[in-house]
Amino acid sequence: MQGKLIVFEGGEGCGKTTQIQQLHRWLMGQESLKQLQTQKHIAGIKLTREPGGTEIGKKIRQLLLAQQTPGDAPLLSKTELLLYAADRAQHVEETLRPWLAQGYWVLCDRYTDSTVAYQGYGRQLDLTLINTLNQIATGGLKSDLTLWLNAPPAVGLTRAAKRGQADRIEQASKDFHHRVNAGFTVLASNHPSPHDFSSSGPTAEIDANQPIEVVAACIQQTIQNRIAQWYPEVKGQP
Amino acid sequence: MQGKLIVFEGGEGCGKTTQIQQLHRWLMGQESLKQLQTQKHIAGIKLTREPGGTEIGKKIRQLLLAQQTPGDAPLLSKTELLLYAADRAQHVEETLRPWLAQGYWVLCDRYTDSTVAYQGYGRQLDLTLINTLNQIATGGLKSDLTLWLNAPPAVGLTRAAKRGQADRIEQASKDFHHRVNAGFTVLASNHPSPHDFSSSGPTAEIDANQPIEVVAACIQQTIQNRIAQWYPEVKGQP
Repeated sequence: MQGKLIVFEGGEGCGKTTQIQQLHRWLMGQESLKQLQTQKHIAGIKLTREPGGTEIGKKIRQLLLAQQTPGDAPLLSKTELLLYAADRAQHVEETLRPWLAQGYWVLCDRYTDSTVAYQGYGRQLDLTLINTLNQIATGGLKSDLTLWLNAPPAVGLTRAAKRGQADRIEQASKDFHHRVNAGFTVLASNHPSPHDFSSSGPTAEIDANQPIEVVAACIQQTIQNRIAQWYPEVKGQP
Repeated sequence: MQGKLIVFEGGEGCGKTTQIQQLHRWLMGQESLKQLQTQKHIAGIKLTREPGGTEIGKKIRQLLLAQQTPGDAPLLSKTELLLYAADRAQHVEETLRPWLAQGYWVLCDRYTDSTVAYQGYGRQLDLTLINTLNQIATGGLKSDLTLWLNAPPAVGLTRAAKRGQADRIEQASKDFHHRVNAGFTVLASNHPSPHDFSSSGPTAEIDANQPIEVVAACIQQTIQNRIAQWYPEVKGQP
């Protein structure tokens, strides 16, 4: 049994967290999933996220998202990048690889594409440097499927603002969030590509500027197609 | 005016902290240093350390040195390496480069050689990976002089034990600390070398298995020689 790594990516307020929960609930009710479990193709489903998917990662996440204290020197972009890499290195080895080896489907909130989009396009750090660090942190572990929830930055930021006080990343400039969105766009159009700066596998773009139920239905359809592709020997696909 | 980066390196209990303070006090009393200041060759002296030389670095240091809570997953070697790199990236840009540009002599407790010795030789991580991360974190900033305080691991660990409760690094195995010492030995013998895995400049080995005053005198002599070499135009050298 080898599990599948299904990554949710997107800008602020794109609805990742909600959609991961929706997909999880939907999958748990699917007959086809029960069959795959009975037939020992899947051990079950696990949910996790980056940064903060491990105990040490939660502490790193606090450093990354903490609001700047006035007067403090800013957290530099390269420091930020290395902290994300540290969180990822621990997450891959402590959590992702063991779960996948046990046969779990892992629904992961953010992975390497976020680093390319946020630190590469948003912070405008060198993409080769980012590729190097993603490679070091993941040891080459790619997603089996990346779902990019694409919402216009203005829509996403308005949604994120409704959640209350903005964290350090949400507070970045509008230009920053437009560059992040442009980064995700490049990543989605480049898979697979010889100039692939991401460590992610195939990417499906989901229009996230729709009602929650519609977005959920699009994701479910994408997953159903993948199940048929990943487990062709299993009969009774939905 | 361009300052000098003087790095103190060595295993646990080698006496770095004491010797940095001793050197600082001695330098402040030196006529030659006052002359260099008057003649605008030196702005002054600053003390700092890695990890923990910045505000964000202090928080990273806590993650690195915190004792393991029983039951928690261990901090993995690659995560540790990336956290050191994050600390260093912030330290180089926020602290070291600005101070050097202002003309300060910077006495720094640990730098890139520690990463080679502890993570490369001690934890046995790939030296090319370490070199890559040292390069990323420093952006190529090398020390002007590295003082390696060489004490036998058994002596150093006994000294460190007297300081009270051991941190996570001090608690590592004796074999680990012997490998660290072997790493520093290789580094000292390899400067300069085409296979130079460190980002440090010239290294002076100091026998730290001697009384504090004797070690301090050796360091002072080394520094006096360097002053004569670095500022040949300045008369009245000690």
